[in-house]
Amino acid sequence: MSNEAYALQVSRYPVGQVGADDFELVPVDLPEVADGQVLVRTTWTSVDPGLRLRLRADAPEGYFPAFPLHQPMDGIVTIGVIEESRAEGFPVGATVWHSYGWRTHAVVDAGEVAMNGLASLRVLDVDGIAPQTYLGPMGPMGLTAYAGLHVIGAIDDEPRTIWVSAAAGAVGVLVCQMARQLGHRVVASAGTDEKVRWLLDEIGVDAAFDRHDGPLGESLAQAAPEGIDLYFDAVGGDHLEAALAAMRPFGRIALCGSVGDYEREPAGPRNLFLATSKNLTMRGYRGSSYVDLLDEMQRRVRAWIQDGSVTVKETVYDGLDQAPRALADLMAGRTTGKTLVRVGD
Amino acid sequence: MSNEAYALQVSRYPVGQVGADDFELVPVDLPEVADGQVLVRTTWTSVDPGLRLRLRADAPEGYFPAFPLHQPMDGIVTIGVIEESRAEGFPVGATVWHSYGWRTHAVVDAGEVAMNGLASLRVLDVDGIAPQTYLGPMGPMGLTAYAGLHVIGAIDDEPRTIWVSAAAGAVGVLVCQMARQLGHRVVASAGTDEKVRWLLDEIGVDAAFDRHDGPLGESLAQAAPEGIDLYFDAVGGDHLEAALAAMRPFGRIALCGSVGDYEREPAGPRNLFLATSKNLTMRGYRGSSYVDLLDEMQRRVRAWIQDGSVTVKETVYDGLDQAPRALADLMAGRTTGKTLVRVGD
Repeated sequence: MSNEAYALQVSRYPVGQVGADDFELVPVDLPEVADGQVLVRTTWTSVDPGLRLRLRADAPEGYFPAFPLHQPMDGIVTIGVIEESRAEGFPVGATVWHSYGWRTHAVVDAGEVAMNGLASLRVLDVDGIAPQTYLGPMGPMGLTAYAGLHVIGAIDDEPRTIWVSAAAGAVGVLVCQMARQLGHRVVASAGTDEKVRWLLDEIGVDAAFDRHDGPLGESLAQAAPEGIDLYFDAVGGDHLEAALAAMRPFGRIALCGSVGDYEREPAGPRNLFLATSKNLTMRGYRGSSYVDLLDEMQRRVRAWIQDGSVTVKETVYDGLDQAPRALADLMAGRTTGKTLVRVGD
Repeated sequence: MSNEAYALQVSRYPVGQVGADDFELVPVDLPEVADGQVLVRTTWTSVDPGLRLRLRADAPEGYFPAFPLHQPMDGIVTIGVIEESRAEGFPVGATVWHSYGWRTHAVVDAGEVAMNGLASLRVLDVDGIAPQTYLGPMGPMGLTAYAGLHVIGAIDDEPRTIWVSAAAGAVGVLVCQMARQLGHRVVASAGTDEKVRWLLDEIGVDAAFDRHDGPLGESLAQAAPEGIDLYFDAVGGDHLEAALAAMRPFGRIALCGSVGDYEREPAGPRNLFLATSKNLTMRGYRGSSYVDLLDEMQRRVRAWIQDGSVTVKETVYDGLDQAPRALADLMAGRTTGKTLVRVGD
């Protein structure tokens, strides 16, 4: 079996856009399964904007370290089926997640705590729910969305107006749908007209605009004439400035990341003084720092998916070798919902 | 009496530094004191960095409006003595504060709510405490300092390391002293060597540095080798960037203003992504939005002043006509502690 296992490795750190040339698909030898370990055959793996940050020699402080060159890419949540087990509670045939990333097989230590604290080896309840949902709404994406609403106090709040940027992205579309379920008025922005239509027609947001359709401030003022109370920021830069300008007093902002800055020099918001003059709170956070919310999130999201109030949207690439292209497409805004790679059945 | 009353008015909005030429001292006619009103003779008035923001045709949204040209300057907290009263509870001879600002006399409506919500007409308890203290530690400065510690959860917190910027300023020096009293380790920065020595020797901070002594990040790393948990920002720009870089996970920042930006184009922090990667909270706030903390603050500060654990530091200018020079000196960093104008006895 060992000569049938492959892993994607970083061959060089991309400058600007990610290309297939920046990676190499190499055969790897799998170690013997030792006591307390399982062999997992990958079925699905994940493609996230955050990976782009780890494809830099100068990965930002406090974030996960850069992927080492010419080594298997660890720390990416992955779904698989146990093929061989020497660990109690992890039977052959069970669907699990782990964090061993972009490879066809992995020998995983059942007691090991994953780098991100979230996806240590765990058997998943796939009864009535598709396994890959655990890479999206039921997994890291769901946790990031839910934790974002949590840090800005939007879970048990009275109805507010929330602006969700990058709303057609894997996390954004969940924030939109969760916020709707929690009673808020949702204003969404995205990068294409098609995504805007989809957000309005399929996802059911209250208002939506294409970020290219004129100055953000004007689009936002049209969608939320009385301003916004909450902002979910996954973009930074001009979006954050527009939010600061549109915020009502005592508004709250979740800083989930700034995908707009990952491939260029970041610029801070020039109107940050408005945070002072309007008593605004800005909270940066990482979903993986809120693992204590995972059970609560999964319970609610499972129910919302099953009763149809949360739509699961995926963009799927087939074959491990397609992961780099999937990442490039994601960064370029060409994917909708959760971006996934189907590695095997 | 009316021909003995004077007011300072803005004659033009200064570009860059404030100059005496930007103001005019003009005689004003005082109205008759009507029912529910008092005539107050000014003894002390206040000079604050925030005034600079109101000396701009384009005062930032959400802040107080610009001072109108050729009109008395309202909305500046001022101490005086009642000379004539037709309002119950406001006897002649009582020391009061109000918000009628830079003038020698004012006829004040006892029922009127001040623009900033704080200094509506109020009789002050000056027993054992100097009246002008109510413009500093017992007034807006004390409230701004205390509210800043409140918004970052530093009042009833376990001991933390806090960096206080502009620490020799009216608010900064209070934040330093309050934080010390609340059990925190205080790292202070200021703009001159003399201020640094004073902070160390007289105010008793744990560490201090001159912001001109090399890169801020290095000075901060030397003063707080293990990083900081809390940051009190009154400067913005490079200070905020240094704080974001030095913050420990889940650190909290109070954004009190960005005096460094009031006379030039503001620049946002380029490393704001660290807020996400380190789970940081940034809270902008205005002291005047936390009037509900005033009584609690005054009770504690009065006790701290009286037992000597809070030092009151003032830079005093004599004569109403000196107020513009006082503001220019304040903005240029030439004053220490609370900047005051003594208008009369």
